[in-house]
Amino acid sequence: MSGPQLYGAIEAGGSKFICAVGDAGGRILEQTRIETRAPGETLAQVLEYFQAAERTLGGLRAVGIGAFGPLDLRPSSATFGFITSTPKPGWRNTDLTGFLERGLNRPVHIDTDVNAAALGERRWGAGHGLDSLCYVTVGTGIGVGALHHGRAVHGLMHPELGHMRVRRHPEDADFVGFCPFHGDCLEGLASGAAVVARTGRSFQEAPHTDLIWSLEADYLGQLCATLVLSHSPQRILMGGGVMQPKLYGAVQDRMRHWLGDYIEAEELQSALYICPPGLGAAAGIKGALSLAIAGSTGQGSTPRNPGGVPSIATSVSSIPPTSLSD
Amino acid sequence: MSGPQLYGAIEAGGSKFICAVGDAGGRILEQTRIETRAPGETLAQVLEYFQAAERTLGGLRAVGIGAFGPLDLRPSSATFGFITSTPKPGWRNTDLTGFLERGLNRPVHIDTDVNAAALGERRWGAGHGLDSLCYVTVGTGIGVGALHHGRAVHGLMHPELGHMRVRRHPEDADFVGFCPFHGDCLEGLASGAAVVARTGRSFQEAPHTDLIWSLEADYLGQLCATLVLSHSPQRILMGGGVMQPKLYGAVQDRMRHWLGDYIEAEELQSALYICPPGLGAAAGIKGALSLAIAGSTGQGSTPRNPGGVPSIATSVSSIPPTSLSD
Repeated sequence: MSGPQLYGAIEAGGSKFICAVGDAGGRILEQTRIETRAPGETLAQVLEYFQAAERTLGGLRAVGIGAFGPLDLRPSSATFGFITSTPKPGWRNTDLTGFLERGLNRPVHIDTDVNAAALGERRWGAGHGLDSLCYVTVGTGIGVGALHHGRAVHGLMHPELGHMRVRRHPEDADFVGFCPFHGDCLEGLASGAAVVARTGRSFQEAPHTDLIWSLEADYLGQLCATLVLSHSPQRILMGGGVMQPKLYGAVQDRMRHWLGDYIEAEELQSALYICPPGLGAAAGIKGALSLAIAGSTGQGSTPRNPGGVPSIATSVSSIPPTSLSD
Repeated sequence: MSGPQLYGAIEAGGSKFICAVGDAGGRILEQTRIETRAPGETLAQVLEYFQAAERTLGGLRAVGIGAFGPLDLRPSSATFGFITSTPKPGWRNTDLTGFLERGLNRPVHIDTDVNAAALGERRWGAGHGLDSLCYVTVGTGIGVGALHHGRAVHGLMHPELGHMRVRRHPEDADFVGFCPFHGDCLEGLASGAAVVARTGRSFQEAPHTDLIWSLEADYLGQLCATLVLSHSPQRILMGGGVMQPKLYGAVQDRMRHWLGDYIEAEELQSALYICPPGLGAAAGIKGALSLAIAGSTGQGSTPRNPGGVPSIATSVSSIPPTSLSD
């Protein structure tokens, strides 16, 4: 085969799907943006994009998807690679992985958007060479990914610490919270959507002296303290629209407050301990690219159906065709 | 060499050190109990025990220690294998690992007591064959260990989720908490020591209708919900003196309450999801034995000083001899 090995990458978000073709060095050769509408319509456009790209650029070795969730990532599950209990209308129980695997006839490797971003940052960005890493995105929602020994955390499902409970700030007793599942969990109090719900304006529009900055720093500081106590990461990368430059130091101060000098590690004092993604706005799509590469080279990806059960028979027959065509 | 390969195991606790000799099959050939006094006195007795055991049973291939902490487990650190910021008088900055490595002239593999127990349970107990597992002990303190991909979580340090913040139960507003670092963190509210401090009696002595049972179930349920959201383990094993049989179901009920139907996994309904250690009271010492075995066979142990820096020169010269002899 001539030319470099090419891979497909999909950053599957609640408002847009970024689709791209890249190479093993992390270069993006081309990309496009597809609005997230109903699954059938959106995924048909994704498929068309990659089919056209293969005609122009040549065959793809594999495709990686970093997706919003929750996702079923249990290799033995009949619904492996499905988006499961999302509140996003129409997307519940969508077989994202199987649909693209059948349509493209290529291996498709899926993980959460934040686990994928963590893997991409470890390969090419601000987590380079680290064994243990957390990646947090604070945008419309709050997502948390985690790596140990260079591999993404799965187990029962995948991390979902956006929905952890925090202690309410003393000046924030009245807001009931915005999460449809938990009310005042972290995402219900501190996500971009929660800020709009509570103040009528976005976080970025609030004056820096506003109470909302203190609340945001405190709640995200509690998240980071919990990350240190649970995952003990060597670094925490934080991105997403809410993460304005001024916020990093304030979050780290509150993290140290909540840890209360118990964890003796000089890294916690370093300005590098909580920092932005090194890949910037490309963290998501390069994360998806890294999933495709890692999955193809046996690095860090969980094989699907390791017991040898044919994947099509078990994972696709249970999804009604209508759920991909409305 | 004739006879089976033998290993030393140490369950290093705040009140006692259990020392044992075992084999690769998990059998304990003999063991002894040494009271935890000052480090110099206690560690000298530990050394004597193993020296005598080697004369009787033959040479040990390696020694594993599952220890109270916090511990420095960063392979590149000058204080690797030290007990660090413990509130236990006299034990702060004790080079447990280096002292025994020099004294026995054998490889010594150390991890937290709870990470070690998790590894032992995965090898021989209730975590057999699981990829991802948490181990919680609720006794005088509260400790949490975690495995991913069959290996213990380290990173910056190791999990310390006993010190996470929980939401206060509405009927528990007055108790200030018992943790010297955080006051009313989980350990400060729900450990055996906290129960004694707040009620004047042990948890086991309280009538089962007592409020203290509801508090305990709620706070430990919050811990388990946080474990699901952070580590997404395939199973949570809970042991320690406070974990009476009746408590398991109540903790699991409160875990589900705090998760609020967000995590769709039938495992969360199973009575096996939160269960006692399969190795019972031997979980700690067999965990230490599994550390020695894994460290000797290259399974799951982080090599010390992977950069090739001589371990004695870097890790021992910084500890004053007096701290091991008072």
